Amino acid sequence: MRENGLKILWRDGKSAVNGWLGIPSSFSAEIMAQAGWDSLTIDMQHGIVGYQTAVTMLQAISTTDVVPMVRVPWLEPGIIMKSLDAGAYGVICPMISNRAQAEELISYCRYAPAGTRSFGPVRAMIYGGADYPQRADDTVLAIAMIETAEAMDNLEEIIGTPGLDAVYIGPSDLSLALGHPPRQDWPDGPVYEAQERILAVAKRHGVVAGIHNVTAEYALRMIKLGFQLVTIASDTRLLGVKAAAEVATVRQGLAG
Amino acid sequence: MRENGLKILWRDGKSAVNGWLGIPSSFSAEIMAQAGWDSLTIDMQHGIVGYQTAVTMLQAISTTDVVPMVRVPWLEPGIIMKSLDAGAYGVICPMISNRAQAEELISYCRYAPAGTRSFGPVRAMIYGGADYPQRADDTVLAIAMIETAEAMDNLEEIIGTPGLDAVYIGPSDLSLALGHPPRQDWPDGPVYEAQERILAVAKRHGVVAGIHNVTAEYALRMIKLGFQLVTIASDTRLLGVKAAAEVATVRQGLAG
Amino acid sequence: MRENGLKILWRDGKSAVNGWLGIPSSFSAEIMAQAGWDSLTIDMQHGIVGYQTAVTMLQAISTTDVVPMVRVPWLEPGIIMKSLDAGAYGVICPMISNRAQAEELISYCRYAPAGTRSFGPVRAMIYGGADYPQRADDTVLAIAMIETAEAMDNLEEIIGTPGLDAVYIGPSDLSLALGHPPRQDWPDGPVYEAQERILAVAKRHGVVAGIHNVTAEYALRMIKLGFQLVTIASDTRLLGVKAAAEVATVRQGLAG
Amino acid sequence: MRENGLKILWRDGKSAVNGWLGIPSSFSAEIMAQAGWDSLTIDMQHGIVGYQTAVTMLQAISTTDVVPMVRVPWLEPGIIMKSLDAGAYGVICPMISNRAQAEELISYCRYAPAGTRSFGPVRAMIYGGADYPQRADDTVLAIAMIETAEAMDNLEEIIGTPGLDAVYIGPSDLSLALGHPPRQDWPDGPVYEAQERILAVAKRHGVVAGIHNVTAEYALRMIKLGFQLVTIASDTRLLGVKAAAEVATVRQGLAG
Amino acid sequence: MRENGLKILWRDGKSAVNGWLGIPSSFSAEIMAQAGWDSLTIDMQHGIVGYQTAVTMLQAISTTDVVPMVRVPWLEPGIIMKSLDAGAYGVICPMISNRAQAEELISYCRYAPAGTRSFGPVRAMIYGGADYPQRADDTVLAIAMIETAEAMDNLEEIIGTPGLDAVYIGPSDLSLALGHPPRQDWPDGPVYEAQERILAVAKRHGVVAGIHNVTAEYALRMIKLGFQLVTIASDTRLLGVKAAAEVATVRQGLAG
Amino acid sequence: MRENGLKILWRDGKSAVNGWLGIPSSFSAEIMAQAGWDSLTIDMQHGIVGYQTAVTMLQAISTTDVVPMVRVPWLEPGIIMKSLDAGAYGVICPMISNRAQAEELISYCRYAPAGTRSFGPVRAMIYGGADYPQRADDTVLAIAMIETAEAMDNLEEIIGTPGLDAVYIGPSDLSLALGHPPRQDWPDGPVYEAQERILAVAKRHGVVAGIHNVTAEYALRMIKLGFQLVTIASDTRLLGVKAAAEVATVRQGLAG
Repeated sequence: MRENGLKILWRDGKSAVNGWLGIPSSFSAEIMAQAGWDSLTIDMQHGIVGYQTAVTMLQAISTTDVVPMVRVPWLEPGIIMKSLDAGAYGVICPMISNRAQAEELISYCRYAPAGTRSFGPVRAMIYGGADYPQRADDTVLAIAMIETAEAMDNLEEIIGTPGLDAVYIGPSDLSLALGHPPRQDWPDGPVYEAQERILAVAKRHGVVAGIHNVTAEYALRMIKLGFQLVTIASDTRLLGVKAAAEVATVRQGLAG
Repeated sequence: MRENGLKILWRDGKSAVNGWLGIPSSFSAEIMAQAGWDSLTIDMQHGIVGYQTAVTMLQAISTTDVVPMVRVPWLEPGIIMKSLDAGAYGVICPMISNRAQAEELISYCRYAPAGTRSFGPVRAMIYGGADYPQRADDTVLAIAMIETAEAMDNLEEIIGTPGLDAVYIGPSDLSLALGHPPRQDWPDGPVYEAQERILAVAKRHGVVAGIHNVTAEYALRMIKLGFQLVTIASDTRLLGVKAAAEVATVRQGLAG
Repeated sequence: MRENGLKILWRDGKSAVNGWLGIPSSFSAEIMAQAGWDSLTIDMQHGIVGYQTAVTMLQAISTTDVVPMVRVPWLEPGIIMKSLDAGAYGVICPMISNRAQAEELISYCRYAPAGTRSFGPVRAMIYGGADYPQRADDTVLAIAMIETAEAMDNLEEIIGTPGLDAVYIGPSDLSLALGHPPRQDWPDGPVYEAQERILAVAKRHGVVAGIHNVTAEYALRMIKLGFQLVTIASDTRLLGVKAAAEVATVRQGLAG
Repeated sequence: MRENGLKILWRDGKSAVNGWLGIPSSFSAEIMAQAGWDSLTIDMQHGIVGYQTAVTMLQAISTTDVVPMVRVPWLEPGIIMKSLDAGAYGVICPMISNRAQAEELISYCRYAPAGTRSFGPVRAMIYGGADYPQRADDTVLAIAMIETAEAMDNLEEIIGTPGLDAVYIGPSDLSLALGHPPRQDWPDGPVYEAQERILAVAKRHGVVAGIHNVTAEYALRMIKLGFQLVTIASDTRLLGVKAAAEVATVRQGLAG
Repeated sequence: MRENGLKILWRDGKSAVNGWLGIPSSFSAEIMAQAGWDSLTIDMQHGIVGYQTAVTMLQAISTTDVVPMVRVPWLEPGIIMKSLDAGAYGVICPMISNRAQAEELISYCRYAPAGTRSFGPVRAMIYGGADYPQRADDTVLAIAMIETAEAMDNLEEIIGTPGLDAVYIGPSDLSLALGHPPRQDWPDGPVYEAQERILAVAKRHGVVAGIHNVTAEYALRMIKLGFQLVTIASDTRLLGVKAAAEVATVRQGLAG
Repeated sequence: MRENGLKILWRDGKSAVNGWLGIPSSFSAEIMAQAGWDSLTIDMQHGIVGYQTAVTMLQAISTTDVVPMVRVPWLEPGIIMKSLDAGAYGVICPMISNRAQAEELISYCRYAPAGTRSFGPVRAMIYGGADYPQRADDTVLAIAMIETAEAMDNLEEIIGTPGLDAVYIGPSDLSLALGHPPRQDWPDGPVYEAQERILAVAKRHGVVAGIHNVTAEYALRMIKLGFQLVTIASDTRLLGVKAAAEVATVRQGLAG
């Protein structure tokens, strides 16, 4: 079976640089897959991507060695299992707030008797290989987002859930949860400290910690702190920011 | 009828900054439409965009005041007229090489008796307004690309074609036509000089000159030379370049 | 932030005339958006519309000032939040039967600490504006459908739920719930009386009442009764009825 | 092979009532297919319909006995033959202006040695039956639109082209061609007289005459004149007009 | 109302041969609909099919008399009801493990007061006919998959649920549930015996038993055992196996 | 640049086994790409595939080493160049009947000064590599179909066209051209002899000869004759035949 590149990186103590796909297009996905990321996550939650389009994006990513993941809209078994059957090698699930939810997420990602995932890896076997049935449970990543007030109260229980591969911080929701405006890349302050606390608990449990970031600079800082799954912005933001900057350069050149 | 913003800019002697859409998605188009461009051109030639998707992109652009244009795949009447009916306010046609082709292009963009465009502006009337039938011929832009060796031999005849709104240089094809490797943003040399010559002929005929560029800096230089329709890169390139740069920043930070 | 036109109408004591979209096409949506409605609701429940298509329909509506809403398939958080992130300014949720469900619905439409909506308004910020994060909770409508027997038993509790913007009657399901064949536009009788009762409770709680209707005449009557959100038929019905009528006119003219 | 219902109607001296599809959706097509039309024409010229969507619309029509036709964007062999292979039982081609073009059109619709249509009726055999190869040439309709000034000069030559099944008048383009504003349903005047002249020539040649109309009333009048293929409006217009009328009824009721 | 062909077969004591659709395309669905199946099931769980595509596949099947069914991704009311509204005549629901789940499934497929299905059969009435509202509850099949360890413990309770039309065995998941590798077409052994046991309980309750098979040979054997709903492979498998066999024939011929 | 695997096979005197894609789906394409073919040709002529879908199919093929080709609808420059820009490594063009058409085809596949292909390999550079501009002309295959009576008269001229990589026989059209019913896999007779003649001329000119076949057996025979590009059936036929055979096995088993 094709190995999960993120597991290899993590086994070696390295960090994975993750890209984020919110544009519903297999071609933008293919462009992103050429940019040097270790993994790409199709955002089916806040991204503008439905299932059918996501499949073509998974195919586009499969033209390379980049590890394909999805963020699912919610802790709902239908879409989680469909994403895995379509070949996702990791599921990032938002808003996991307690142990029961964490167990549910993991259950959806593992076959019986370990979990409740239904068997039928129609595209996943093409992507992963003929021994996918035997090795999927050890290959596919179950990743819980930590971003609610309730989750902060249940950190140990969530992160200690057997079978959880990683936790992933959504700083905007975490900000709201802690009574702050929704933003990312906090330089310090209570949200930053909560991030550190999550990282510390994860380290203690031997669970990988990940975080969503806007800039490469902040992502780098997070890696140095110990995060091993760092995302930089998203295709929507990269495109919007770069385009606006180019236009501004011309406008300023004309005005100057 | 909704006026064509490019015509207003040109009437005032200004230049239009044009964005380029090769990603087949109405959402990336909407993101681009927020970035400050004067116009956006959906590239149905080298972009990865078919007609049905292009329509949703035209709709996305129509949520703003940005002028929607298309580059068509070839001098083929079916797709040119379909694009206009879908609400494009300008048609950039590749590889116009002689007077007859220029006349053909203009003919496809004008109703009888001025041309051979067939009547049925099903979406164009929604976008343009109820008097579209009366005013379309004066509003919709017919733009001929100058990029072949034959065109360089027929510059005066092409640019002098009555009804032509603008010419648009494709530097890569022009490079090949002149025996050079396909590239853009030539700082000087024979392709650069050909660009200047096209501009000069256009100026003499009172026809707007446009050019495809990679960088904002070169686009700015072209505006200062007198080009009034300058494109910067494309969504595909902006996304790919920006993404690769972000990843590289992290990788270098880790290596450093 | 772009204001919610329905809130303005309601603040002024006026009623909103709402159109209904069941055809999965951004172009039929754009045609409907030209017809004079105050709002348009994309029906993701009984309409033939999936999420990815719904986004292009939201874009099409965004070319106008018509307020975009969705009816979601069920009280399921994934699709409710995805719809809001895509720019819907209102969510109509079917089959709300008790206070807990009403609270759940509202929760999915509000950010922490008011609710459990996850933050990531990727398209909603484009549509609504940069201050969407601050003002979304006061702008986005949470609307509960009243159409089950259980709901009729829990009217006060449901309608009194803090944060509920409106209730919306689905007469067909309400008919079934009360033991009658599924129809709309009841002239009188028990379903009609149930409608009146829902309206009365809503009025007492200061909550807007809405209702689904087939004909303009009935919608008008409902407005005069006090309903402030009235829907007329749907694009599927308008098209089917009008087409059949035109054909019949010819057939009868030939037979006559 | 499934017979062509239009041929049966015409053989019996009857007229066919044709619907027109400009909304790119298999579901609006299926709704229209329930409305009583003899045939439905997917408008790939001025309608907002590309090839891939058109196929799903042909499938939707195939759930009924309504005869499926297409109007192609232009006299271009690629799309004409693709439409036939997808199961269209008739091709309406715009802007046929002379004998050579009429011959070309017919040629694209007939197999060798009668024509130049390439063999591969992949979906057409499913729709038509196993003997499609033997009977297609006698079943599939080649219909030339008469709507240009040049065509009016070449009426006899065009209509007399062997193998032409019908001519079809596009009144808007014909109006422009004759120096009038583009409209349909002319009550009298030069365009009306041109319509009569086309009909007369067609009758003399034993070729069916068809015409595009806005209203059922006008279509009825045209049938009584002798036209055997009459279209009423289009789905886009039926929907837009009906929706606007319903909204207006409510607005007026409130104002009154 | 159009009758459900499976009910007729079963009433007569016959078995239905069911095809399985995992390719997301209305054209492959139409090809399959020509192959002689009694019914076709669109697999929205492990198949690569989302809702919007499934609708076009239902339309394609509706060009024939083959009975259209869906397998839904999970026991989630949104997608179950949407599938029925789109015209599915049967719902196969995975992983039903106890009486409560079976009741929930049936409830989603029946209108009040029998169940909780919401009324709005927008496409289903086109497919089924005008009396769909009255007859749907007796026509639409609710089919529970038996494939978990918990279900084996609750066989009587599940199969005895009033209103359940059939049970359907998923041998791969059942294998996992019983501690065996996921496979189908077991010739004997514990999974085979479990299949027999499920059949026996179904027979005792007068409920139809169905099973998923790989080969026609095994399906035939299952029919002879008493299964009345037998599936053979899937379009994805049929295509993949047949293609590989053809290539192998050539390769071997060359090597031989 | 990624080499063209067909060129390598041919250079070594071997034959390529080619699959044929007429189902418009990236997933059926991916399944076919796993079946062992040397190349896959997306049939945009008689297949039910439009451009936008074809791109996703090219991406699916790109997950493997199978060489991606397209058959274009006609000798039309727009779609030929769009296909190449999307990453096709070969273009099979139908109905080439004379030297001028062959030259035109080749011209569309080659950059200036060798041809008239316009420069903009947006996806092709991703697939082929950074040196695509320099090496494309030597990598991309231009393949002319020989299938008309006129072509049989111009065999030498067509096949002798400089730059032509291969000819490809369409037996059905060739049958019609020679006055026979359209079929493939002729065991002998005039069409068979014409095939031999085409092969002989191709051999003499050092041009690869290819042929479309239904069965593996015939394809094998053709390879042994000297054809170096042999297609077996198509996905549509493989699926339809295999499905019908499976159903028949069950029906016969029951009847027996």
